[in-house]
Amino acid sequence: MKISKLGEFGLINMLKQFVPVSKTVIKGIGDDAAVVPYSKSEYLLITTDMLAEDTHFTRRMPPQGIGHKALACSISDIAAMGGWPTFAVVSIGIPKNLPVSFIKDIYKGIQEVARQFNVSIVGGDTIKTDKIVINVALLGLVEKKNLTTRDGAKAGDVIFVTGPLGGSFKSGRHLSFTPRGPQARFLVENFKPSAMMDISDGLSGDLNHILKASKVGARLDHAYIPRHQGVSLSQALNDGEDFELLFTLSPQKARLLMDWQTQKRAFYFYPIGTITSDVKEKIDTKSFTHF
Amino acid sequence: MKISKLGEFGLINMLKQFVPVSKTVIKGIGDDAAVVPYSKSEYLLITTDMLAEDTHFTRRMPPQGIGHKALACSISDIAAMGGWPTFAVVSIGIPKNLPVSFIKDIYKGIQEVARQFNVSIVGGDTIKTDKIVINVALLGLVEKKNLTTRDGAKAGDVIFVTGPLGGSFKSGRHLSFTPRGPQARFLVENFKPSAMMDISDGLSGDLNHILKASKVGARLDHAYIPRHQGVSLSQALNDGEDFELLFTLSPQKARLLMDWQTQKRAFYFYPIGTITSDVKEKIDTKSFTHF
Repeated sequence: MKISKLGEFGLINMLKQFVPVSKTVIKGIGDDAAVVPYSKSEYLLITTDMLAEDTHFTRRMPPQGIGHKALACSISDIAAMGGWPTFAVVSIGIPKNLPVSFIKDIYKGIQEVARQFNVSIVGGDTIKTDKIVINVALLGLVEKKNLTTRDGAKAGDVIFVTGPLGGSFKSGRHLSFTPRGPQARFLVENFKPSAMMDISDGLSGDLNHILKASKVGARLDHAYIPRHQGVSLSQALNDGEDFELLFTLSPQKARLLMDWQTQKRAFYFYPIGTITSDVKEKIDTKSFTHF
Repeated sequence: MKISKLGEFGLINMLKQFVPVSKTVIKGIGDDAAVVPYSKSEYLLITTDMLAEDTHFTRRMPPQGIGHKALACSISDIAAMGGWPTFAVVSIGIPKNLPVSFIKDIYKGIQEVARQFNVSIVGGDTIKTDKIVINVALLGLVEKKNLTTRDGAKAGDVIFVTGPLGGSFKSGRHLSFTPRGPQARFLVENFKPSAMMDISDGLSGDLNHILKASKVGARLDHAYIPRHQGVSLSQALNDGEDFELLFTLSPQKARLLMDWQTQKRAFYFYPIGTITSDVKEKIDTKSFTHF
């Protein structure tokens, strides 16, 4: 069978079989980041993202943006667990004929977002490839009490996103987005979301991951879904690479959050639907898949 | 300027400028693995390796061997710091038309060496690429007192390797080698090497890394360099991908190690030369370079 027939999630499910989870692993494959023991009060988070030329970016895009994206999407994964990023290693596959300035600028983009989020790049690998490939592996930390996974959503919870969705790739926003680290920390410290993840493959598909992990259903209020200018509902539901956070709060906490943001407006969180107990209430999806 | 003109080490030096080392980093770019704080008595080690089709392997090679190599060379890096491996994340770039069985077998190879060295694969990423790309990021731990870097070699120290060298790529050994984890632990626990690294780019080039980091010179006894069958001296000196450990011991410790191995023979270590105080005594090299 070819990969294209199996599909991305078929592939991931197949590969999981080869990866027996050791007892010391708190959370393995299947959330935004892996969770392993660290200290008495904290967990270590590990995530990795690979970006390839002509899949995630082209050589005509600004190299600093490509570097920005390579690290920012991993920072977004750490935020989605409720944590903060610490150390990263970066591997780059470089074509022989690529101008050195292009690679320099990719690194500049990586370093800029690293500085902004207090990440130290501590190592890497450089190899020869036909097309540019960038892999970031990022570590993070989270207090045990603030760890937020995909599997805690409960019937009645309110579903929120941290910002407008859709058109990220077409607009170039996928090369300049700001990972929602501060929002994630604000939420876990003050409102304890029941579930959280970042929207990388599209709202509908990613919400389904929460529903499946939490064994619940959901109803979305389409009219409430915040969209970028010129973006259709279908795009807001299905476009990938927004990297906004998607999270759920108990009705009481949702009320408190709405009250808080009416007064403070430091961040804005958008309620877009409700978790239900009917597991058959899935979200129709044309979610992005790689294969 | 093109990458091919700058060369691999020119590239790494150039990129280092963009990576200001934070104060919390014990050891950043420039050793086998990065070293960051962990607990009162231990450091966390981080290393990453990227392998690409037609650079490090071809599709005609056994996929299990490719998977084996992808993780084993990172385990070798952790061993070279004196530590033991713990958790890994694996990213794979997969061409659309690749048979699923090929990827399955790559994972089998990864999982086999993971099991052997007690590594948990805790996450990863799968993306679409034109050619197969595999990136492993591996964490490890080492007691602070057992951390062994490249910069501690002293004039008079004896230079050792853990096994015969040369012809690794041609013979296929680069797909089946056993990382020298047990040997590394035995050495740091009992003999405290003054410097250690693994031989990935070739003995001569890699020894020069130790000489440069330690600000010393070296003389090799060519006749003592252990070689695989049918391998010339030049191949033993310059072929990459052997993944044997290269380390230095004070004359007293070297004597003790030689006495020990005459009696026990659990491992065998080969003395191949001496560290000198003359920094101009570099090793002639045709070391492997990617560009």
